[in-house]
Amino acid sequence: MEIRIERAKTLKPKPDQNHLGFGKYYTDHMFEIDWDKDQGGWHDARIIPYAPLQIDPATMVLHYAQETFEGLKAYRNPQGEVQLFRPEMNARRMQNSNKRLCMPYLSEEDFVEAVSKLVEVEQDWIPTAPETSLYIRPFMFASEPGVGVHPAVSYKFIIILTPVGNYYPEGVAPVKIWIEDEYVRAVKGGTGFTKCGGNYAGSLKAQEKAEEHGYTQVLWLDGNEKKYVEEVGSMNIMFLINDTVVTAPTEGTVLPGVTRDSMLTILRDWGYNVEERKLPVTELMEAARTGALKEAWGTGTAAVISPVGELYFKGEECVINDFKTGPLTQKLYDTLTGIQWGRLPDKFGWIKVLK
Amino acid sequence: MEIRIERAKTLKPKPDQNHLGFGKYYTDHMFEIDWDKDQGGWHDARIIPYAPLQIDPATMVLHYAQETFEGLKAYRNPQGEVQLFRPEMNARRMQNSNKRLCMPYLSEEDFVEAVSKLVEVEQDWIPTAPETSLYIRPFMFASEPGVGVHPAVSYKFIIILTPVGNYYPEGVAPVKIWIEDEYVRAVKGGTGFTKCGGNYAGSLKAQEKAEEHGYTQVLWLDGNEKKYVEEVGSMNIMFLINDTVVTAPTEGTVLPGVTRDSMLTILRDWGYNVEERKLPVTELMEAARTGALKEAWGTGTAAVISPVGELYFKGEECVINDFKTGPLTQKLYDTLTGIQWGRLPDKFGWIKVLK
Ligand SMILES: Cc1ncc(COP(=O)(O)O)c(C=O)c1O
Ligand SMILES: Cc1ncc(COP(=O)(O)O)c(C=O)c1O
Repeated sequence: MEIRIERAKTLKPKPDQNHLGFGKYYTDHMFEIDWDKDQGGWHDARIIPYAPLQIDPATMVLHYAQETFEGLKAYRNPQGEVQLFRPEMNARRMQNSNKRLCMPYLSEEDFVEAVSKLVEVEQDWIPTAPETSLYIRPFMFASEPGVGVHPAVSYKFIIILTPVGNYYPEGVAPVKIWIEDEYVRAVKGGTGFTKCGGNYAGSLKAQEKAEEHGYTQVLWLDGNEKKYVEEVGSMNIMFLINDTVVTAPTEGTVLPGVTRDSMLTILRDWGYNVEERKLPVTELMEAARTGALKEAWGTGTAAVISPVGELYFKGEECVINDFKTGPLTQKLYDTLTGIQWGRLPDKFGWIKVLK
Repeated sequence: MEIRIERAKTLKPKPDQNHLGFGKYYTDHMFEIDWDKDQGGWHDARIIPYAPLQIDPATMVLHYAQETFEGLKAYRNPQGEVQLFRPEMNARRMQNSNKRLCMPYLSEEDFVEAVSKLVEVEQDWIPTAPETSLYIRPFMFASEPGVGVHPAVSYKFIIILTPVGNYYPEGVAPVKIWIEDEYVRAVKGGTGFTKCGGNYAGSLKAQEKAEEHGYTQVLWLDGNEKKYVEEVGSMNIMFLINDTVVTAPTEGTVLPGVTRDSMLTILRDWGYNVEERKLPVTELMEAARTGALKEAWGTGTAAVISPVGELYFKGEECVINDFKTGPLTQKLYDTLTGIQWGRLPDKFGWIKVLK
């Protein structure tokens, strides 16, 4: 892929690395490439100054939400190099999202090249303070104007970057999770396994409800029977029940998280018994009640790990591990962040160091 | 609501009324109003020249699809006046959509006023040829830039207009319907009853599949059991089984169509037995097989009525009424379009004539 680079005339001041927040600042440039059916597909890959888009009010993305996105990070390792974590996993997941939404997609190679080039151009934006990184947001949307409902004939794929601190400003600390039994996120035959915008818009209501009750995040049940535990708002979730790690399978309704896959690999490498299976919420609550549930944690790129300190379901509250971060949760966090930030050896070949 | 009007300096040429299509031309002006949490809500209602929007690439609508829309029409009656059809129904439905998506909403009064004012300003755009009208597209989306998943703190509500001809260029003629048993549109606890973008993006794949098999539209089954008939891509659907009209109830998964409600009212007024009930697809196919299914038709603002000439389900094809528009379907079409275009008396008080 040939990428034209047009540099910004003036650069923005870099923000204070100790108060980055999550998505408050965007870098000086963005990557953009267009897809037009009548121009033979992808064309005009470019890195240009970050600037507003000109969008016709009839543009289909504003009406029919034909849009997908990804999320990954660039890290500064102790040698001062810049590294990505399994970017090809995001490339492939976006392909799967786009296929479900009848959208064209970039090849794995072009996706990774686009990410890499933009990060290289913006490498001065990668923060160096502990636990900070450069969050990478590739996204794509229907850019055709029109009110008829059909797959668009033109699209824009864009990448923007934002330097981020810890997702939870207070640091890694247990969160309270609300198990939702009314609203539904995903159902077999739907879009649950994709990162499409609609999944997130539809999930806001339950999130609002959870917060009203003093909970941080929603744990979704399957949409068909509301019986099995699936995932959290923007994380997969794992449970240490006795000495087995249990997590929902990725069979169409759950997003196949890169962090999830990486943690399962590490756990298996450590010899843990890992079960990817449908876990009934009744079994989970019973395990929490009896103490068989030793630890629980959410996994996702943004927060890496969120220890779960409490579960709420239909009027019942169960505290897990005295509302403290458990030893396995902590060890997983240290190991995965160690690999991501380059403090530990890249045993599984997950790191792509940029030149 | 105070609406500032800024007129376009030059007006576009009006398109040929015999080749309007659906959504090919947009008028000279649009309505726009902003909602900002930190400015106390709605402000700055205005009718301005139709022009591209400036949208930051981080704008939440492009990532998380917090967006809803509506669709209604303005008609030119035989006296040359301009009239709307039940616009308050669209206002209320948009309120329900927005509540589900954690978005603020306009009052019924402001919604209808905004639609009316814009249509008045653009009345020269309302075509007069038979079966033509001015399609009105109100829509609203999260305009806050940010990559965190939460309800936005700022929104834009916009109305655009497009003169339209017959939705089906060939005129009212029976369509072939594919009953989908793999992909799912909506599930209890989801967003099925709303006009949110995500519902439409998620439905494209099945539509594509139906078209590949030579069918025009998809008929969705309920997402939980894939057992009951719900609605078509952008229409509700009704069946005349023996002498009873059967249609799905609107209990959370089906969009409560304005056309649906109007037709049920007309049918009841005519003394028909109308059942809003869960109709098993097996019962429907059996009725089609035995000939108990006399007629079937889709209902929606865009096409008004689409007679259904054939149903496909799991390998079986059933032709309905010899693939001809049935007498009840035709009578409903004539009656409803008669009221909408002002050729028949407004018996139910559905028409709002603009000054
Ligand atoms: C719904 C959902 N589940 C799970 C995840 C975790 O995926 P990953 O580990 O790839 O960030 C995310 C975040 O990307 C998400 O949005
Ligand atoms: C999914 C869906 N169902 C039904 C309808 C019909 O609704 P109405 O009659 O209000 O146009 C529409 C179109 O608006 C729709 O998009």
